[in-house]
Order: sequence, then C-alpha cells, then structure tokens
Amino acid sequence: MDFKTIANEYKTPLYVYDLDHMTKQYEKLKEAFRGRKSIMAYAVKSNSNLSVVKHFADLGSGADCVSIGEVRRALAAGVAPYKVLFSGVGKNDDEIREAIESDILYINVESEAELGRVELIAKELGKVSRISVRVNPNIDPKTHPYISTGLHDNKFGVEIDVAKRMYIKAKNSEFLDPVGIHFHIGSQLTDLKPIYEASEIVADMVRSLHAIDIELKFFDIGGGLGIQYDDESTIEPYDYAQAILGTLKGLDITVICEPGRFLTGNAGYFLTKVLYEKQNGEKRFVVVDGAMNDLARPSLYNAYHRIEAITDNDGEVSKADVVGPVCESSDFFAKDCELPMLEHNDLLVVHSAGAYGFGMGSNYNTRNRSAEVAVKGGEVRLIRKRETYEDLIALEKDLLG
Amino acid sequence: MDFKTIANEYKTPLYVYDLDHMTKQYEKLKEAFRGRKSIMAYAVKSNSNLSVVKHFADLGSGADCVSIGEVRRALAAGVAPYKVLFSGVGKNDDEIREAIESDILYINVESEAELGRVELIAKELGKVSRISVRVNPNIDPKTHPYISTGLHDNKFGVEIDVAKRMYIKAKNSEFLDPVGIHFHIGSQLTDLKPIYEASEIVADMVRSLHAIDIELKFFDIGGGLGIQYDDESTIEPYDYAQAILGTLKGLDITVICEPGRFLTGNAGYFLTKVLYEKQNGEKRFVVVDGAMNDLARPSLYNAYHRIEAITDNDGEVSKADVVGPVCESSDFFAKDCELPMLEHNDLLVVHSAGAYGFGMGSNYNTRNRSAEVAVKGGEVRLIRKRETYEDLIALEKDLLG
Repeated sequence: MDFKTIANEYKTPLYVYDLDHMTKQYEKLKEAFRGRKSIMAYAVKSNSNLSVVKHFADLGSGADCVSIGEVRRALAAGVAPYKVLFSGVGKNDDEIREAIESDILYINVESEAELGRVELIAKELGKVSRISVRVNPNIDPKTHPYISTGLHDNKFGVEIDVAKRMYIKAKNSEFLDPVGIHFHIGSQLTDLKPIYEASEIVADMVRSLHAIDIELKFFDIGGGLGIQYDDESTIEPYDYAQAILGTLKGLDITVICEPGRFLTGNAGYFLTKVLYEKQNGEKRFVVVDGAMNDLARPSLYNAYHRIEAITDNDGEVSKADVVGPVCESSDFFAKDCELPMLEHNDLLVVHSAGAYGFGMGSNYNTRNRSAEVAVKGGEVRLIRKRETYEDLIALEKDLLG
Repeated sequence: MDFKTIANEYKTPLYVYDLDHMTKQYEKLKEAFRGRKSIMAYAVKSNSNLSVVKHFADLGSGADCVSIGEVRRALAAGVAPYKVLFSGVGKNDDEIREAIESDILYINVESEAELGRVELIAKELGKVSRISVRVNPNIDPKTHPYISTGLHDNKFGVEIDVAKRMYIKAKNSEFLDPVGIHFHIGSQLTDLKPIYEASEIVADMVRSLHAIDIELKFFDIGGGLGIQYDDESTIEPYDYAQAILGTLKGLDITVICEPGRFLTGNAGYFLTKVLYEKQNGEKRFVVVDGAMNDLARPSLYNAYHRIEAITDNDGEVSKADVVGPVCESSDFFAKDCELPMLEHNDLLVVHSAGAYGFGMGSNYNTRNRSAEVAVKGGEVRLIRKRETYEDLIALEKDLLG
C-alpha cells in the first residue's frame, strides 16, 4: 500500500481501509463454517462506514446492529433485511418499533423488561416480532475487563433460568416468535476454551427448549474472535468453527456469527503526520497531527497499535511517546516506541486501526474528524469526506442568541 | 431546576446548562484577582457550545483555545481577539497561519520546533507573531495521571532552560514578539501547594528574563481549579488568587487565568431516562437511554458523577450499576449507586456534567449526540439541536459507490 501517495492526496489525519483484506478475512471465516448453514452477520459497530458495510453486503454478509442507526446503515448499504439482527441492552421504544416494522430477522432481547416492551409494541403494531434471547453463560473470557461481557457482573444478556422463562413467555404470546438464541462472551478473544464451554451450555439449552416444543432456528455465537495487534496468539477460524460445531451435534440449526474486529481490524490504517519532535528532560515526544479524538483505543483501553514510520531518516532509533495535539496527557498513540529521528511532515502509519477506530471518534477540542478512504484492487476511493468547522457548528450556529 | 418538564419538552438524553451558575463562578474568580489587572480566558475545551462561549464573552471573558476550531468558536461567539490565546502541543501550519492572521493576543508555544514554525510562517505572512512560552515547572499536581500535565514525563510545555533559550530567540527575531509566559500543571487541582510552587518558579523566570531586557506583559497561570464532584476538598478562589499574587511582588504584569471546569462543571446536568431495570445474578442494573458516547468521563477516567433519581417510587434503595445501551462493559455512569426501584421513563439526573461532557461525545454505535439547552433567569433555550441519522451519514452517503 502506497501510504505516502495516499496521504499526500487525501491529507492527514486519515483512515485507510484495505477492502481486499476484509474480503479475505470474510471468506476464511465463512469457509470455516461450511459444514452447516450459516450467516455471517457483520458487526457494524466495529466500522460503520456505509461503504464498508456495503462491501460486506456485496459478499453476502448479514449485519449485527446495536442501534436503530446501525440497522438503517445496514439496510441503506444493501444488507438483506432477513439477515439483519438488532442487539443491545438498551433499545428504546422508537427503536423497537422501527425494527419490527423493518421486518429484520430478529430482535436480540437482553432482559425480561425488554421482552415486555417488545411484546407491547408488537401488539400496538398488530405484528409478530421475531426474537432471540441473549443468554449470559457466566464464563470468564479472559480478555480486557472493558470488553468482557459474559459474566453475571456484566450488563449483557440474562441468566439461563431467566432465559427459559422468557422463551416460554414468548412461545405463549401471539405477538412474539422465539426463533434464536444468542451469546457473546467478550471481544478480542484469544483462548478457545471459554468459547467452547459457553457454546456447550447454550446448545444444551437449545435441546431443553426443544423438549418443551420451542424449536429455535438460529444459534447466534456472537463475535469476539481476536486479531493480532502485537504478538498475541489468536484462534484459527477453522478451530473456532470446529469447537462450536462440535457442540451442535444432532441439532438442525443455522449458525449466526457476528464478526467485527476479525474482519476489519487489521484491514485499517490510521495515517498521521509528524508536527514536531520534542524533548522534555529525558523524555522524547513525537507530536503528530492525529489525536485521541481520531483514535481513542490507546487512551481508553491502553491498547497497543504498531506504528511504522515512513521517513528518509534511517539513523539510530530511540524510544519516544507518540502523542497528539489534544490537551490531555491521555492523548497518545504509543509509549516508548522505537523510532528514528523524524522530520516535520514525515508520515506515521498506525496499524490495526480498522476496528473501533473512526467509529469511536469525537470532535473533542473542536477537532474535525478525519476522512476515510478505501482501497480495492489497487484503486483508492474516498468513502467519507473530512469534516469541516462548518459541519461542527451546524447544529448550534442558528441558535446563538 | 424543573428537570422533568425540561426532559419532557426536549427529550432525552439531554444536556442542561445553568448559565446563572456559570456567571456566579466567573464573578467569584474575577473578583478574587481584583488586586491586579487580569484576564479570565475561558477554557473553551471544557464546554465549547457557541452559546456557552458567548455567555462568557458577554461577561467580558477572554478565551483559551487549543485548536483553530476553538479560536473560530471564540471569535464567532464575540470574544475580543485581544483576549484570545491559542495553546496546545500540536498546532499545524494552517492553524498557526490563521492564528497570526486573526491577530489574537498570542500563540502559546510548547516546543522549540514549534517556535521555529511560528517564526517561519510569520515571516511568510510579513507579520510579527506575539508569543508566550509554556514552561513545565516539573511539579507534581497530585491529580489523576491523565489530567496531570506539569511533569517532565508529560508532553506539555518545555523545561525552564529551554524556555529561556526560546525567549532569547524570540527577542532576536523580527517576526516574533515574546509577550507572555504560561504554565498549567494539571486539571481538577484540589491542593494549593503545587500551584504556589509552580508560580514561584515561573515568577522567578519572569524576573530573570527582565534582567536581560525581555519584558513580559502576561503571566498566564493556566487553569485547573478543581470542583466538587463528590466530597473532594476544593481550593477557594480567594486563596488561589492570594497564592499566585504573592509570588508576583514587584512585577508589573497582567494575570491571565484559564478556568474551564471551575466555570462549567457544576453548572451542567445530563438527563437520561430509564429504559429497563435488570437483574443478573446478584447484580442490579438500571439501563438508561444515555451512554458513554454522550458522557465519556466515567468510562475514560472512572470518574464519579452524582446521580439523582426523579421518580414516584419512594421505597427502599439498593445498589445498582447505571449503564447505557452501548455494547461495551465500559459503558456505565455509576457503579453501586444507591437507587430506589425505577420505572420505565423515570428520569435520572447526572450531576456535574457541564465540563468535558458533550464536547467529548461521539457517534459510537451510530448513536446521535444529544441536544443541549441553556437555562438563564428561569428561561430555557435550545442551544444545540439533537443530531439525526441523516446528520451522521451526511459525509458518507454520496460516496456510497
């Protein structure tokens, strides 16, 4: 990828996505589940740019959505409604109404109270709402506490017993149709065992529901497959699929998988230019034009991203913190990163920035969000314009008394 | 404040600002420095809504800005250019150019490399750029590491010796005019001693510059005055001013203060409605319609915000986590918060949300940012419209290939 040319044409800070890499990842995962009917439902929250979602839609992907905004993005990008799921612990009434009216595959329900609202709203609309219940198998996924979701301490899903009660309620309601079951124990998983254990528990539940005449059609295993940011060991899609499929013996059920980071994470790059080299006492800083408002993962999770310098300087490297212009000490991309001495306008490539990058961006410090470009078959295309100051004040300026 | 009526009229999630409280805080601080010429330069980053900035401008405030976007906001809101400062470690060339052309009070320079760029650009423009140098006094402010800025480990400012070199360079340049000196050791300060010590060091520097014929006019003490989120002890403005003024004996210099959180923090409220009560094992969750994309401080800094429930239920309270709809375990407003049982649509008021609230907001999970309203003399006024889905995709949709 010719980052220098792209940066010169589209300016920095900039997000660049390699759609061909996304295709490769998608096909690898889809292929791993070929032994069974499956839907790959792309987790839109990982990278919600309309053109990225469309890219997956064109490959036949479904969409896992966590807000009605994401449902709209998926439908606008051409994902078939019967492959769209709506998940999340806090859907409001308007969202539930629109989801039912859009005739998506199902609503993933995360509490008894929510099931009540869905039924009420379906009744008002005179429709039947297809639902799935997210169960919380109480398994420790061994990932960062902020992206762990499968323990009772977490807000996600419901306990097995509660889920059973909800399925019976749904079965007995003329406005609800229980079609699926869902679990998701965490993100950036690098250990197979907790996934296998969770899948066992949930598959058993499918069997016991079957015994009381509740026949589920979809077994939604969530997402969370890890990627390599640094030197983490990761799970091979084939092993992942085998572990899951091994728990489904004797069940006639379609597997739904919700990959996000796995598809987009390593396909994305964040490009930023060097503004200044700076030394404070013993400490070296490289100040760049991108900031935490562009890519929040380092400050939010202390996440590691590999940084590559594109420079004519090939001298000795030394340790430096790579920091942005935002007025917070948390505004950094890397600490103690080995880099050669850099010049004004040298380019830094922040790797593995395709997932939870642009989408978590803000306008903090009145900074415009960066542009996004996609590369496919060697062609580069703008897929989101750079924000301007006028965009930032558009909803305020007419109200300035 | 009648939160219920406001929430019903403007919907939730919603930010509400009490402009009268901001006025009171502004006047208290201005008054504390009455013994000397002073400029209160409002730290726009704490709450950058145009109407909020205008409120301070109307009170005679200046503006401390950390991006050219903030400079534009300040000027658009009516702050006099000669009271506008431009700070920050990473100004790019376009920002420096516009700042010089806007004839603001000065550019706060944070590195030798930056001083070089400012001189170069001033020369290109055929203008003289007024500058100040941010010195890093290497004082531990005893606050959260993410908002501590006055140690050499931080990216901010330059060491005393470097600063001296920079002043001499500026003095000798026909395109630079050194007029000020700046320090800022951290945010949410609750201990007076480090402020006093830093001010001593910097005042000594002013004296030694004076001895070599560099006469500074502005002594910029930064911001950072803490507020009470919970039961922290805070510094009284009077004591703060006395500590600073005590270090300036014999100096004919104008004090510049950059209050942000002190003015806006406790004047702001975030309103959010209850969607669901939910129990996972032993753990109680209250799921609300606001989320980390609206107010990031709890997930980013594990910050405490007092939460008040407006409900007809007056039964026993029990501990609950207050969480939002975003699909991250970090999406919470409070942990183990004592609350009565709540009903769908009950209102929660998140206190002390006026600073670093809306401004750090994002569209994560394709969630629209909330509206903002201001209350003044009992009158409520919309100061920023709620975002819509159309706003979110505006820069993408025409590029959907």
